[in-house]
Amino acid sequence: MRVHLGLVHHPVCDKNGQRIASAITPVDLHDLARIARTYGVSTFQVITPLSDQQELAERICSHWTAGFGASYNPHRREALELVTVVSSLVDGVQKISAMEGKEPFILATDASRKEEKMISFPDARAMIDRDLVVFLLFGTAWGLAPDALGKADAVLEPIMGVDEYNHLPVRAAAAIILDRLVGDHT
Amino acid sequence: MRVHLGLVHHPVCDKNGQRIASAITPVDLHDLARIARTYGVSTFQVITPLSDQQELAERICSHWTAGFGASYNPHRREALELVTVVSSLVDGVQKISAMEGKEPFILATDASRKEEKMISFPDARAMIDRDLVVFLLFGTAWGLAPDALGKADAVLEPIMGVDEYNHLPVRAAAAIILDRLVGDHT
Repeated sequence: MRVHLGLVHHPVCDKNGQRIASAITPVDLHDLARIARTYGVSTFQVITPLSDQQELAERICSHWTAGFGASYNPHRREALELVTVVSSLVDGVQKISAMEGKEPFILATDASRKEEKMISFPDARAMIDRDLVVFLLFGTAWGLAPDALGKADAVLEPIMGVDEYNHLPVRAAAAIILDRLVGDHT
Repeated sequence: MRVHLGLVHHPVCDKNGQRIASAITPVDLHDLARIARTYGVSTFQVITPLSDQQELAERICSHWTAGFGASYNPHRREALELVTVVSSLVDGVQKISAMEGKEPFILATDASRKEEKMISFPDARAMIDRDLVVFLLFGTAWGLAPDALGKADAVLEPIMGVDEYNHLPVRAAAAIILDRLVGDHT
């Protein structure tokens, strides 16, 4: 499989739907890296245009990949080695294109049901099974801004719980979505 | 469905396999509560015998259920209202028995493959579909200690990734397991 993960900090929405750049949440980096490593994801891009936030992300990763943490917890090193920090979605796509020799299919995720460009979990899974290069995007804060969704080739159907409550942490959503798309359920 | 969640802080294992009581990790409470609410779990028990840790858990919950957080973020209130703090696994089982009018089936989770008492995801899902009262246990730190696993009626098969790497955060494991056991995949 050739799946790349992107955690987008800009452009995302705030609580009121305004377009913002969100701050790095360290536990998101740790959790998504461990989830990515578990499911065989190729790279995990942390996407933020803010230089201080890029430095923060780099510092967290280097602590666990080269610093004290690397010998203290090798499993965490192995996970965080998948992380690269990029400044925009466009840069992220270029990086993947250079690595894979072709442009990735951009598959965005969103918690609300939108019909346009929506694809089902089985259809997305089938694309990954056919070895398509997929860039799976998660939005932080209140989710990907409309212009980020607009750049996507498709938007994955949302995870539905028992009722209309749809407030999973991005960490949990990423775990469930990767399990549904590439997990071994036999 | 009648599923109750338990996050065990004692008895669990540390890195070296020693039996310990772990500290509360606030993000675990938040994430598991939101996951529990999403999937229609009845109660979420935080299990710790340490009184200072019980107070910490209560303080986190009351901030979001009765304090400033309740009006600031009602979705978080709705999730954290599922939380109760209990001092032991035995107390937790009694609480569920009193509420449900019958003893729960204790279903433990464990990251390593152990054959004894192991049941598959489809079998566990079928039990929940038959409306059995299930107490689904997750261990913090390096997982449930042998005596906690010994109290379980069954141990759920582990989540398998692409290889032998099995270091998912308990937050991610809980999300994936609930999605597999009760999620709507149609």
